[in-house]
Amino acid sequence: MALAGGIGGARFLRGLRAAAPEAEITVIGNTGDDITLFGLRVCPDLDTVMYTLGGGINEEQGWGRTGESFTVKEELLAYGVGPSWFGLGDRDFATHIVRTQMLAAGYPLSAVTEALCDRWQPGVRLIPMTDDQVETHVVIDDSEQGGQGRRAIHFQEWWVRLRASVPAESIALVGAEDAKPAPGVLEAVEAADVVLFPPSNPVVSIGTILSVPGVRAAVTAKTVVGVSPIIGGAPVRGMADACLTAIGVETSAQAVAELYGPELVNGWLVAEADSGVRVEGMRVRSRPLLMSDPEATAALARAALDLAGELA
Amino acid sequence: MALAGGIGGARFLRGLRAAAPEAEITVIGNTGDDITLFGLRVCPDLDTVMYTLGGGINEEQGWGRTGESFTVKEELLAYGVGPSWFGLGDRDFATHIVRTQMLAAGYPLSAVTEALCDRWQPGVRLIPMTDDQVETHVVIDDSEQGGQGRRAIHFQEWWVRLRASVPAESIALVGAEDAKPAPGVLEAVEAADVVLFPPSNPVVSIGTILSVPGVRAAVTAKTVVGVSPIIGGAPVRGMADACLTAIGVETSAQAVAELYGPELVNGWLVAEADSGVRVEGMRVRSRPLLMSDPEATAALARAALDLAGELA
Repeated sequence: MALAGGIGGARFLRGLRAAAPEAEITVIGNTGDDITLFGLRVCPDLDTVMYTLGGGINEEQGWGRTGESFTVKEELLAYGVGPSWFGLGDRDFATHIVRTQMLAAGYPLSAVTEALCDRWQPGVRLIPMTDDQVETHVVIDDSEQGGQGRRAIHFQEWWVRLRASVPAESIALVGAEDAKPAPGVLEAVEAADVVLFPPSNPVVSIGTILSVPGVRAAVTAKTVVGVSPIIGGAPVRGMADACLTAIGVETSAQAVAELYGPELVNGWLVAEADSGVRVEGMRVRSRPLLMSDPEATAALARAALDLAGELA
Repeated sequence: MALAGGIGGARFLRGLRAAAPEAEITVIGNTGDDITLFGLRVCPDLDTVMYTLGGGINEEQGWGRTGESFTVKEELLAYGVGPSWFGLGDRDFATHIVRTQMLAAGYPLSAVTEALCDRWQPGVRLIPMTDDQVETHVVIDDSEQGGQGRRAIHFQEWWVRLRASVPAESIALVGAEDAKPAPGVLEAVEAADVVLFPPSNPVVSIGTILSVPGVRAAVTAKTVVGVSPIIGGAPVRGMADACLTAIGVETSAQAVAELYGPELVNGWLVAEADSGVRVEGMRVRSRPLLMSDPEATAALARAALDLAGELA
C-alpha cells in the first residue's frame, strides 16, 4: 500500500502498478488541499491519482483532464464569479458536480471516491485519508509585497495563486485533531505487507496524511520505504522546498529522511547525487529517481519493493 | 408590465421592448417549472427570458445558449449520472452554478436573478413570481404504455422526457398555497399602466404565476390584455393543448379567453382565423399573431398596447 499526494504520487503509483501487476494496492490519498470552489467540492490529489491511473490525465501538465475545455470557467468569469486562478475545466467540473451532489445526499467522501473510481477503474483501491473536512492553511505575511499583511490562507491560494512566492510562516492542517481516518484506512495499513511513500511532498501530502489521528502509529508499525522527493538539494518537481522551509527543514534528501525518522521510515531511496545520505537505523539506497518514462518509473517502484523485501 | 413563461413569453417581450423602447418594463417570470438537476437549481423560464432579451439565446431552438457545447453533460453520463433527457449545455451550467452558489449562501431567488441579469442587461426588470420553492407536478398513468402506473412526476419529466405523450390527469403547483410573491411583484403590478399576458402557456406559465397568493387579485384590478397562445385550434408552439386538456379546457382561443374570464382579462388578441371569438365584457381583436420576425413581433406588442390604451 502507499500514501499519495498529487502528481508525483500518482506517477509513482502508475509505476508501482506496472512493477507489481498482481499486487492488491491500496492508496491513502491526501485531502488536505481539498477546496470548495463555486459551491463544488474539489479534491485535487484524489482526482490526480484517479485520472492518472484511469488514463484520463493531462500528461503534460500532470493534473486535470486530457482534451480539456474551459467553457464553464469562462462563463463564470463573465458573471464576475471567480476565482480565476484555479484551472477547472469542463470535464473536471463534471467530477466535482457528481462529488458535490453525492456529498449533499449524505454519502461520505470515501463512498463518493469509490463511486467515481467505478468509472475510472484505476486498478488500485483509492481511499481518502479521512471523511472529515480538514484543510491545509498557510500563514503568510505579504505586507512587503503590498498585500493584506499577516493572515492564514487556504493552501491552494498560496500554492496556485501565489505560487508560493510569499514565504509561509507556518502550515497547519485545520480540523486534523478531530478527524478520523476514513473507513478502511487503518485496516488497510494493518493488512499491508509494506507501506510506500512516493516522492510526494513530505509536508503537505505525506505529512498531512500522517497527521490524521491514528495513521502515523499504524504506519510506524509497518515496514516503510520512502522515495526522496528531493534530488541534490532541489525538489524533483513542485515547490516542496517552500513547504520544508516553512517547517524549518532544509531542502535535502538527508533532512527529509531525518524529518521522517528511522522509527517511521525503514528504507530510503535517494538519487545517485545523494548517495552520501546516512541516517542511523534507516537503510539508504541510491537509485535513479527521475520518473521520466513508464519504464524508469516502474524500475523505481521495483527498487522500493526490493528494499522493502530486504527489510521485512 | 407582463407575466411570462418561456420561449413564447421571451419572444413577445423582445417585441414589446422594441415597440415601447422608452417604457419601464417589469416582467414576472414563472418558476413553477424550476427543477434541481445534478444538485444545481435550474430555472428554465427565467433563463429563457434573460438569455433571449440579453442576446445569448439559441435562436433556432428558442431555449439554451447560442454556441453551446455539452462536455459537462457527456462527462456526467460517463459517470452514470443523469438525467440524460434534460439538455444542459456547458455555458448554461455556469448560470446554474452561480445561481446555486448564491442560493446556498442565503440569497433569495429574486436577488440571484437580479445578479444574473447584471451580466445580461435584458432591458427589463425580471422578477421571479416567488422566492419560495413551488414546483408544477403532473399526475400521469402510463400503465398502458408499460410504465410504472399512476403517479405524480415533475413537470419537466412530463414535458421534456415524455414530451407530454402520456395524458396528464391533473396538474398541481406543489407549495403554491404557502408561497409569497417575491419582493416587488405586487408593487410592480399595482404601479403598472397595463398588464400583458404574452402567448405563454395559460396553464403552466400564466396560470402558475396567477396561482401565487395575491397575484391574481392584484392583476384583476388592472387593465389586462392577453395574446392568445392558440391559433385555429392548435398551440402556436409547444404542447399547450396537452395542458388545457388536463384541466378540461378545449384548445381554442375562445376557450382560453373564457378560462381567463372578463374579470381578469379585458382585451384579447386573436388570430384572423379566430375572429369569431366572443366573450361578454372582453374586447376581442384579431391581429397577425405569428412572431415570425422582430418586426411582426413588435407589431403584435404594439397592437396589445394599443388595445390596452383604448381600454384604460
